[in-house]
Amino acid sequence: MVDLLRRLAAEALGTGTLVATVVGSGIMAETLTNDVALALLANTIATGAILVVLISTLGPISGAHFNPAVSLVFALRRELPARDAGLYALMQVVGSIAGAIAAHAMFELPLLQSSTHVRTGGAQWISESVAAFGLVAVILAGIRFERKAVPMLVGLYITAAYWFTSSTSFANPAVAIARSFTDTFSGIRPVDLPGFIGAQVAGAVIALALMTWLLRVPTGSDLPINPENRT
Amino acid sequence: MVDLLRRLAAEALGTGTLVATVVGSGIMAETLTNDVALALLANTIATGAILVVLISTLGPISGAHFNPAVSLVFALRRELPARDAGLYALMQVVGSIAGAIAAHAMFELPLLQSSTHVRTGGAQWISESVAAFGLVAVILAGIRFERKAVPMLVGLYITAAYWFTSSTSFANPAVAIARSFTDTFSGIRPVDLPGFIGAQVAGAVIALALMTWLLRVPTGSDLPINPENRT
Amino acid sequence: MVDLLRRLAAEALGTGTLVATVVGSGIMAETLTNDVALALLANTIATGAILVVLISTLGPISGAHFNPAVSLVFALRRELPARDAGLYALMQVVGSIAGAIAAHAMFELPLLQSSTHVRTGGAQWISESVAAFGLVAVILAGIRFERKAVPMLVGLYITAAYWFTSSTSFANPAVAIARSFTDTFSGIRPVDLPGFIGAQVAGAVIALALMTWLLRVPTGSDLPINPENRT
Amino acid sequence: MVDLLRRLAAEALGTGTLVATVVGSGIMAETLTNDVALALLANTIATGAILVVLISTLGPISGAHFNPAVSLVFALRRELPARDAGLYALMQVVGSIAGAIAAHAMFELPLLQSSTHVRTGGAQWISESVAAFGLVAVILAGIRFERKAVPMLVGLYITAAYWFTSSTSFANPAVAIARSFTDTFSGIRPVDLPGFIGAQVAGAVIALALMTWLLRVPTGSDLPINPENRT
Repeated sequence: MVDLLRRLAAEALGTGTLVATVVGSGIMAETLTNDVALALLANTIATGAILVVLISTLGPISGAHFNPAVSLVFALRRELPARDAGLYALMQVVGSIAGAIAAHAMFELPLLQSSTHVRTGGAQWISESVAAFGLVAVILAGIRFERKAVPMLVGLYITAAYWFTSSTSFANPAVAIARSFTDTFSGIRPVDLPGFIGAQVAGAVIALALMTWLLRVPTGSDLPINPENRT
Repeated sequence: MVDLLRRLAAEALGTGTLVATVVGSGIMAETLTNDVALALLANTIATGAILVVLISTLGPISGAHFNPAVSLVFALRRELPARDAGLYALMQVVGSIAGAIAAHAMFELPLLQSSTHVRTGGAQWISESVAAFGLVAVILAGIRFERKAVPMLVGLYITAAYWFTSSTSFANPAVAIARSFTDTFSGIRPVDLPGFIGAQVAGAVIALALMTWLLRVPTGSDLPINPENRT
Repeated sequence: MVDLLRRLAAEALGTGTLVATVVGSGIMAETLTNDVALALLANTIATGAILVVLISTLGPISGAHFNPAVSLVFALRRELPARDAGLYALMQVVGSIAGAIAAHAMFELPLLQSSTHVRTGGAQWISESVAAFGLVAVILAGIRFERKAVPMLVGLYITAAYWFTSSTSFANPAVAIARSFTDTFSGIRPVDLPGFIGAQVAGAVIALALMTWLLRVPTGSDLPINPENRT
Repeated sequence: MVDLLRRLAAEALGTGTLVATVVGSGIMAETLTNDVALALLANTIATGAILVVLISTLGPISGAHFNPAVSLVFALRRELPARDAGLYALMQVVGSIAGAIAAHAMFELPLLQSSTHVRTGGAQWISESVAAFGLVAVILAGIRFERKAVPMLVGLYITAAYWFTSSTSFANPAVAIARSFTDTFSGIRPVDLPGFIGAQVAGAVIALALMTWLLRVPTGSDLPINPENRT
């Protein structure tokens, strides 16, 4: 296993780049068009693409969680020590705020902002639970059946989830926190964070429970077993 | 083989997620833009992406049919017992209706709706036959030549078929039934279902016949034989 | 090798499906939007996607040329007998005209049409030469280095070429002929065919010459040699 | 290794095709729509697609740098002799200018132009540094972990970077120079070149330093080592 310092650097770099992409592409899109669907489509394509790239290139170093809810799931599966999971989450938050600031720097905007974008209510919370449920389910099944496909599967999953949820699928507490620091297309009011984060964690834990059952190897099964299915 | 209960759960979960994506992304798109082509493009990209994800992650469990016409084809090929095919179809319908309801919940719409979207006539029925023909042909050839590519091939096929058919390629009786329960972008009037479903089944059976001939291993052929071409 | 009858059926089916996609998605797009760039984008995505599908599923049967210029190149490389190449071209033309008719049927339009879409002049001919040059270069290099990637490479190449040529990259004499039979988005006047086809053949032959030099294995080279680089 | 003449031809052909795609798709897009976001999306998709194609087909010949900043990085890593790197850069510039001229020829525009598109200022320079940093990081990590994925990773990275940077991510001195020769969508004023090129080289060198640390094999590590990770 790679030493902790480098793993934490990879988590910060990856989550930061992810947020810079989400925030930056949102700024670029809303600057160039008045059609919100087109802006969201550009935002979607940029986010899906960078996820494939980041998970492929940093996954072999840190596992490429980039998401405290995902690190929590691996800690609950006892595949990551609780202390490491906590440090992962910390670096994900630090990295993702740096990513938002970097996006602002690249677009000549005030570096520190506070979002006024209202995102709250039951429908949005259901959306975030579904989004995080799906994300964790995809990761667990992907690791189980074909680890090499995980980057593409996560990128494609988020591409779809941007559109099938009313919240545009944050699905990530660290990214949500960072997005409260930008008053642009992809922002979220700080006061709306607890609802989002609670819903995300709930969805992730439910996915862990369901997938643990669904993916358990049945006795005498010929379900393919991925020889590399350990972290 | 995985036990039936888990296979049925995978079929319900997969078909439900597929319908939630089709319906949800349609709602999101028509909310954000007045350009119908742009709405269909977003709908297309979300659907194509989630198909790759669902077939990759649930395929090793249940085969990832998510479609009674596909289960019928595998039953006719004697690769799935008739009883299992019937249960698959049942769970696909149940799951897909749940998926439509979930989409409504995520967008704060009435959970149960009845579509008023007219989709009927010869051109639409030809479209659905062609769409289902192509879907089954892609699946059978994909399994025959390179099973690992099937998720991507199906996702890309549906991406194209959304645009080259006037019906936007439902190609799936379970999904069609579920879409009669939403009065949004992707809906279909209940009264239009029989025409669609009949056309889909016809297209699927024709594809089975043609591809059985086209893919038969010729004597002394060096056509590559996929060693895993059994379910 | 698969028997000739099935190979010819695969060429007709594949070229027909390709043309049905090009023509059908063009009709769908121009029906739904007034923005020509958006229409072309939908047309592009559908075409690129179906190319990956068709080459993956029919390639193991016939080689998936779907294009008389490509069959000519393989005949010149002596990897396809001249008689077979002629029959391939014939079936490609027959299949592609059937594909245009099928698209019209799916959209309830007159089955037989004659295009009035003007596509002529030096810039368009240069475009078609460049487009066919690139297509053949991609195919020959793809076969040489990694045959399994050819479907994706051709799909992505055409995706790009739709936009970097002023002609939207027909790059295919059979498809061009079929497109003269539709008076919709993707049509071409019959009188403009000779210029397009001449330019396409010229581009293809130049690519054959250049790539034969570029891909020749140097003495003592460690350039990877694809063990399956024979048809 | 392939002889130098062919490697230089591959670098010129690849960089030229890349620029023809960037410039040509920009011209096509701005001709067809008034929505700048839609134009940039078309530009993005064409560029991302052709990058995958070019790196896949020419990579085995020359390494598919197509970028003096990338050749510099490989020279600093002592994987390419300084003289070869200089010749690579020269041919990249020559090829890329030829690519811009080819795009103009395909769209019937004056072959030689001088851009008036202003691209300057700190935010743009930060953007170019970030863009080149990311490009080099992706290449180095991709080579380290899974060389075969590099074409797709670079294509997806640039797809995202077009949108998360205010400069639309040139990230390439040769391409920047060529783009000063077109007064269309993708152009850049000649006077703005030094700022862009300086920022790109800085970003590339910083990426080399950081990734050399991040990717170093730790003692006793089980970090996967790619057996082909030498050029």
